[in-house]
Amino acid sequence: MSKLDDIVSLCKRRGFVFQGSDIYGGMAGTWDFGPLGVILKKNITDAWWKYFVEDRNDIYGVDAAIIMNPRTWIASGHTATFADPLVECKECKSRFRADKIAEGINESVTTEEFLATHTKCPVCGKENWGPIRKFNMMFETHVGAVLPDDDESEKGKNVAYLRPETAQGIFTNYKNVVDTFYPNLPFGIAQQGKAFRNEISPRDFILRDRECSQMEIEYFVKPDTWEENFENMRSLNHDFLENVMHLPKDKIKEYEVPAEDRAHYSKRTIDFMFDYPNGEEELMGLAYRTDFDLANIAKESGKSMEYRDKITKEAFVPHVIEPSIGVERLFLAVISSAYTEDEVNGEKRIVLKLPENLAPYKFCVSPLLKNKPELVEKAHDVYQKLKTKYGYVTWDDSGNIGKRYRKQDEIGTPKCVVIDFETLEDDTVTVRDRDTTEQVRINISEL
Amino acid sequence: MSKLDDIVSLCKRRGFVFQGSDIYGGMAGTWDFGPLGVILKKNITDAWWKYFVEDRNDIYGVDAAIIMNPRTWIASGHTATFADPLVECKECKSRFRADKIAEGINESVTTEEFLATHTKCPVCGKENWGPIRKFNMMFETHVGAVLPDDDESEKGKNVAYLRPETAQGIFTNYKNVVDTFYPNLPFGIAQQGKAFRNEISPRDFILRDRECSQMEIEYFVKPDTWEENFENMRSLNHDFLENVMHLPKDKIKEYEVPAEDRAHYSKRTIDFMFDYPNGEEELMGLAYRTDFDLANIAKESGKSMEYRDKITKEAFVPHVIEPSIGVERLFLAVISSAYTEDEVNGEKRIVLKLPENLAPYKFCVSPLLKNKPELVEKAHDVYQKLKTKYGYVTWDDSGNIGKRYRKQDEIGTPKCVVIDFETLEDDTVTVRDRDTTEQVRINISEL
Repeated sequence: MSKLDDIVSLCKRRGFVFQGSDIYGGMAGTWDFGPLGVILKKNITDAWWKYFVEDRNDIYGVDAAIIMNPRTWIASGHTATFADPLVECKECKSRFRADKIAEGINESVTTEEFLATHTKCPVCGKENWGPIRKFNMMFETHVGAVLPDDDESEKGKNVAYLRPETAQGIFTNYKNVVDTFYPNLPFGIAQQGKAFRNEISPRDFILRDRECSQMEIEYFVKPDTWEENFENMRSLNHDFLENVMHLPKDKIKEYEVPAEDRAHYSKRTIDFMFDYPNGEEELMGLAYRTDFDLANIAKESGKSMEYRDKITKEAFVPHVIEPSIGVERLFLAVISSAYTEDEVNGEKRIVLKLPENLAPYKFCVSPLLKNKPELVEKAHDVYQKLKTKYGYVTWDDSGNIGKRYRKQDEIGTPKCVVIDFETLEDDTVTVRDRDTTEQVRINISEL
Repeated sequence: MSKLDDIVSLCKRRGFVFQGSDIYGGMAGTWDFGPLGVILKKNITDAWWKYFVEDRNDIYGVDAAIIMNPRTWIASGHTATFADPLVECKECKSRFRADKIAEGINESVTTEEFLATHTKCPVCGKENWGPIRKFNMMFETHVGAVLPDDDESEKGKNVAYLRPETAQGIFTNYKNVVDTFYPNLPFGIAQQGKAFRNEISPRDFILRDRECSQMEIEYFVKPDTWEENFENMRSLNHDFLENVMHLPKDKIKEYEVPAEDRAHYSKRTIDFMFDYPNGEEELMGLAYRTDFDLANIAKESGKSMEYRDKITKEAFVPHVIEPSIGVERLFLAVISSAYTEDEVNGEKRIVLKLPENLAPYKFCVSPLLKNKPELVEKAHDVYQKLKTKYGYVTWDDSGNIGKRYRKQDEIGTPKCVVIDFETLEDDTVTVRDRDTTEQVRINISEL
């Protein structure tokens, strides 16, 4: 098993992440967060929100609908260009993303270029391909009273899409925020929420899923200050990843995206790459989007997106710096950095060395023996006390103490507190450390 | 203007709730939360999560995907029965929900019954109707590599739906939670997340929207204990609504849903009705769902949903008590209970008397004059100090003090702190109370 397989297995075994619709054999590209995954995910997203929104005074939050007016995607360019090259095997009718089954081509491959690679069908082994077609990755639906036998033009009037990014829910609210809060430039708008991409071949666990959560900020700046604001966002994001998420600095590498590979709207993009168990992959992106989005919204809506400087009275369309991060990608970076196999007393041990601020449970409280009511009662007191103070605390009275420690190691609980007969006499407990496995004896009041 | 109109207007004016896709003329049935709405919404959902999940030890959280395997909706009954009666005017082609435009009929109306009401088309005034048709309210999409010119049977294989309720994301994970956490009965699984209903005519602001957020618990119990667990959930939910959300007790009324009006799966349902500005409406539901869902999942998946009692070893399918609440409905209940118009010094005042635990900002800090650097600097110190301690705190140095108070009243900020020349001498500030408008002079250290 690869290390990624080990992590997937731990995530399922311990209730972090299950396959979506598991009970029905799954639903490709979807994942469900289990009881511990929900807490870890919430710790990650809450920490981001606190760092970028709550603790600052220049970034506003929004929470926009997933189903947006389809003109949004005309203005943003997604209707025209958010597409992958699809190719169909004429023999077995299997469909593939062309640039993923052939070497040396990219997303803009033509039929001729693809045929020249002489790729064989991964399913039937033949080489008999249809033309390359553009497959738009937005999920399409119909809004309102459309019936199955309506004709296509009737249905077409009601087409809408699941948003493929949260960014446009921010841009379409830019004017609302400006008109309501009169912010000074530079200011930002942040959003956390779901985005949907109909990947032809979802893969790599939660790295390339069809339904994901994003955390994005559009930071609006005076055009001639974009570089300093870009640098500022760059260092803020490093600080967040290294000092709040506690990701190892040496696993994060910047990749300056060359002009020919950048998204159509971007004049500069740095991808923050992370050293995942299955190789380097994008963790987040930092893009200078110019005034691309606001200018297109102005064109499509007929409304001015100009910002008027309060002092100089100068009016202009702000430019935008966008840090964009996928929650699942960050979740996997956190879990895979924490995943450790070591040896304790000659036995292999799996331990999730999660930072304390992210660990689902801060403490595990156990009575040494579960059939001694006086120990159980005392342990319950300690449990309730810690829970009131620290939030999530877990209780474990199953199996023997060694087994309990192994389980808490696997779910990343930093400290295990054991109540024994000595506790009843002098109010001291054993506190065992997850990372060092060392045990110390301290008074309950010092916890 | 009705009181609801006043609230909609305040929500837009002050950045709580904007129309979805506002900039493009909207997207019917969708709403975007603005900067203050996001904070209020998060305060509500976090308080619910803390009350029902974090502070307890018998309820587990999950966060399942929105796009689920379509067999989910066969098992749940949604594919067959989650439909409204649609009728089309043959003259002007307008479509309506039949039971909303005619009197004295309900959702199960037949064509004959509808025609007998002699309803005229609300658009063209004629009476020339097509037959009643069942319109399924689930949003349909296609997952995977489907192309526009694929035939219907090909497309059909890839049909999926946006979940119409969060409940099924819980039921489909019941076995995962049991197999991973070995919980004792009774135990619950909770989820917060989006749900989608393609309402034919969305209306009443955020009360009947196409995209909403739900907070649901499925509480699994021994079949013969359902009544006591139902009563327990009933009182917990009253406690939450009255003592955490601080909704006025006299605005919440229980409605015992009679057998003929209950959902097909329910043996008992109590709707918690709330006295909204536009009349009584359902705020939340409490349903005894029996083993309907687990039994159907067992049938559809071929997997056992039995729970084995750890002591008696008896095996059975648990029964379920479900409290289900719509976040937007709760949000509107909170805002409309807080919305007050009164008179201060002979002037009309709008004030949102939000409970302190839910108010977006806990304090507003202002320097008396914005052009006195020593006042501004001192006020900044106080602002930073309060922000570190209380989280969201706002700064206001615009207009005169009276105008600042009016604005903070409208957004529900409980206390306004003003720094003046006296502050520089003796470290005291004026603290003005939102509800009483009374001002007291206290030392900064007492804040």
